[in-house]
Amino acid sequence: MTMKKIPHRIYLTEDQMPRQWYNLRADMKEQPDPMLNPATLKPATQEDLYPVFCKELARQEMDAATRYVDIPEEVQEFYHMYRPSPLCRAYNLEKALDTPAKIYYKFEGNNTSGSHKLNSAVAQAYYAKKEGLTGLTTETGAGQWGTALAEACAFFGLPLTVFMVKVSFEQKPFRKAVIQTFDGNVIASPSSSTEAGRKILAENPNTGGSLGCAISEAVEKAVSTPGCRYVLGSVLNQVLLHQSIIGLETKQAMELIDEYPDLIIGCAGGGSNLGGLIAPFMQDKLTGKANPRIIAVEPASCPSLTRGRYAYDFCDTARITPMARMYTLGSGFMPSPNHAGGLRYHGMSPILSKLYHDGFMEAVSVEQTRVFEAATFFAKQETILPAPESAHAIRTAIDEAKKCKETGEAKTILFGLTGTGYFDMTAYSSYLEGNMSDYIPTDEDLKPGFASLPDIPQNQR
Amino acid sequence: MTMKKIPHRIYLTEDQMPRQWYNLRADMKEQPDPMLNPATLKPATQEDLYPVFCKELARQEMDAATRYVDIPEEVQEFYHMYRPSPLCRAYNLEKALDTPAKIYYKFEGNNTSGSHKLNSAVAQAYYAKKEGLTGLTTETGAGQWGTALAEACAFFGLPLTVFMVKVSFEQKPFRKAVIQTFDGNVIASPSSSTEAGRKILAENPNTGGSLGCAISEAVEKAVSTPGCRYVLGSVLNQVLLHQSIIGLETKQAMELIDEYPDLIIGCAGGGSNLGGLIAPFMQDKLTGKANPRIIAVEPASCPSLTRGRYAYDFCDTARITPMARMYTLGSGFMPSPNHAGGLRYHGMSPILSKLYHDGFMEAVSVEQTRVFEAATFFAKQETILPAPESAHAIRTAIDEAKKCKETGEAKTILFGLTGTGYFDMTAYSSYLEGNMSDYIPTDEDLKPGFASLPDIPQNQR
Repeated sequence: MTMKKIPHRIYLTEDQMPRQWYNLRADMKEQPDPMLNPATLKPATQEDLYPVFCKELARQEMDAATRYVDIPEEVQEFYHMYRPSPLCRAYNLEKALDTPAKIYYKFEGNNTSGSHKLNSAVAQAYYAKKEGLTGLTTETGAGQWGTALAEACAFFGLPLTVFMVKVSFEQKPFRKAVIQTFDGNVIASPSSSTEAGRKILAENPNTGGSLGCAISEAVEKAVSTPGCRYVLGSVLNQVLLHQSIIGLETKQAMELIDEYPDLIIGCAGGGSNLGGLIAPFMQDKLTGKANPRIIAVEPASCPSLTRGRYAYDFCDTARITPMARMYTLGSGFMPSPNHAGGLRYHGMSPILSKLYHDGFMEAVSVEQTRVFEAATFFAKQETILPAPESAHAIRTAIDEAKKCKETGEAKTILFGLTGTGYFDMTAYSSYLEGNMSDYIPTDEDLKPGFASLPDIPQNQR
Repeated sequence: MTMKKIPHRIYLTEDQMPRQWYNLRADMKEQPDPMLNPATLKPATQEDLYPVFCKELARQEMDAATRYVDIPEEVQEFYHMYRPSPLCRAYNLEKALDTPAKIYYKFEGNNTSGSHKLNSAVAQAYYAKKEGLTGLTTETGAGQWGTALAEACAFFGLPLTVFMVKVSFEQKPFRKAVIQTFDGNVIASPSSSTEAGRKILAENPNTGGSLGCAISEAVEKAVSTPGCRYVLGSVLNQVLLHQSIIGLETKQAMELIDEYPDLIIGCAGGGSNLGGLIAPFMQDKLTGKANPRIIAVEPASCPSLTRGRYAYDFCDTARITPMARMYTLGSGFMPSPNHAGGLRYHGMSPILSKLYHDGFMEAVSVEQTRVFEAATFFAKQETILPAPESAHAIRTAIDEAKKCKETGEAKTILFGLTGTGYFDMTAYSSYLEGNMSDYIPTDEDLKPGFASLPDIPQNQR
């Protein structure tokens, strides 16, 4: 019998695709701490979330018990336009590294949003439309989430307002134009269309805006407009549920080629990609079926897992959301402006935070010049231009593959390639021209962020 | 027996992928007229091409006899990183049009160059490397070809110099940065590094450059640098050979679902995509096995097939290449500056020109506002942002599907979706803001182009 060569790209057939999402919480013996209503400091209820989120999404946010959730037919229909995403064997990267390791990556960039964000956008837009809502609002910084949501809302015929951080609105006119092509109403934030925006403009008419301000405007617009709700692309439990499609497809594809990862690597900002990629493998870990190493990779300049505190904090910088217990640098933490590689969020998904706290996964931080070095090396071997976010995972995958070369171990390494970098060329140019520097905050630099943590009894390291 | 639903996306397995390109000329009873050496007006020989093209590519250019050409293992290895491209069933477009037609499209945009150009770039870079060349040159306007060639050259470790039209160099810094990420040396054209560039700069120091000038510089640099050759991404016979992978994959995928197109639609600039897509279907037509309708779609503002002359002409505006007999508006024809949709080439692949002349295919021209209308409609149904070039084919596919609705015919329509539009958002914005206008040249407007045609005996309509 001859050993059949594993193909470079493995696509599931439509019949083989998962028809259910997987809810990681159902297999966690130790649950994440409950969200708190900031007014009462009591656990938030599903109903507490209704003014902001549509009902089914509020339910999913709170539902830790249902292990598998049917993917609605209409969402599957949309998935079938850009999924399955390929599981890729990085033969040419392996060859360039001369490593005995087998390297796989799940590539989520082959869709117009350029990232995995679309997986949750379509689910959220579908439930909103089904519930009879007449509009959604969100914020976007770099624009991937705004694009993904605009694609989903255009498909379901749901009006969308995107508050785009003003500096991005002005510097990234192409992103704005893509969202507009999908009928999204893009407003530069701060704007005069909300109380929050007007207040900030009055104080500082020339501000370039911030994600915190855009969130405040989007939430205000949603709660003050009948039939309108707010949606968010990361951090939330519901988002991790929808993103489990990444891991479920990956595991299924690996089974077809009789593989199982020794090591799973994902970049971590708010946790949407990492949580989705690892979901079914973490299930194996939680249920004792297997024990792969799982590594979260974050930027050295925004190191929530590796240097943050496991504490109750607000999910937004404007401190209007419920509080969640998570690894956080404090909602007042601002990453250095020279940080180009995405993953700027001050906190981390409460589910992933709990799993990390309980020892089910590891975390490392990497400097951005090493990230871009890995990105350009990868691009030339595998002919994909990666998003800087994704390149954090590439960096660590390369480092681990090099260790395998030293030890001679033929480990199976899996990493998540979350998206493409077409809209990040300013950062690439900066790297290529030698103008990129690294920033690692000192303990002193982290103090203001920690000082912004809400002072409540549960707030413990 | 239940009728199994055809999936939304059909991917061949690696085993099912074509291992040979198909050379359309081998089945043409009437061959295209030979290229002419402009100095002698005699048919150009393979050796005449050696100073400009590498030997194997010069051979392929002249070889009308070999029906199937083995795809080198190394090129297959590269193809496997981004191919097969999906054959897509446009269920949601069909639904939105309420048409009985079945619409399929072959999507070539899922790679970093964003288009089908990579299919020939990797072949050309491979042969150049194999022959021991030490460098390649080319020109690029919008940048898709330059990006594709940079990806291929980076993979094979071959230095590349790209002369980029100065106005694009300045207005599209992101494209430039992508090429640089893949180690391409990008020079704004006109430059002081060539005789041709210096001459143009001396006459007009502030010029934004032109594709004609960039070609002149790239060819000069290639012929004056030992071990260096020039490569081109369209028009040539060798390019159509490499691009046949598009049609071969498509036909194979359609056989798997027991389909055959009644109608095949492709956009046509120089002909690289159209020639590749239709190749095996045209074979059926030429050999009497089947008789699908084949429609080339071109912009009304640059209508080489529908309003050009079938005449000998230069392939470049600088009149330094051999002459080919083709449908042409004259190398002196300049498309209107308000034309945003690509496909600006004055001529057309000699192979396609001959087939059109002999009645094997049809051609239509479409106005750009109708093209962008189709593009935005398609984007919202199929969640892919198309390149303006590709949207010419979408426009005609939609028009034909609407005719099917009127007549009640359930035709099978296939079109080529050549790429994505991320770098064309200026044009999209212009359309969305209502600032886009149409331009249809009058007969008077076409006169200067026709006057530029070389005055030789074979020059007949």
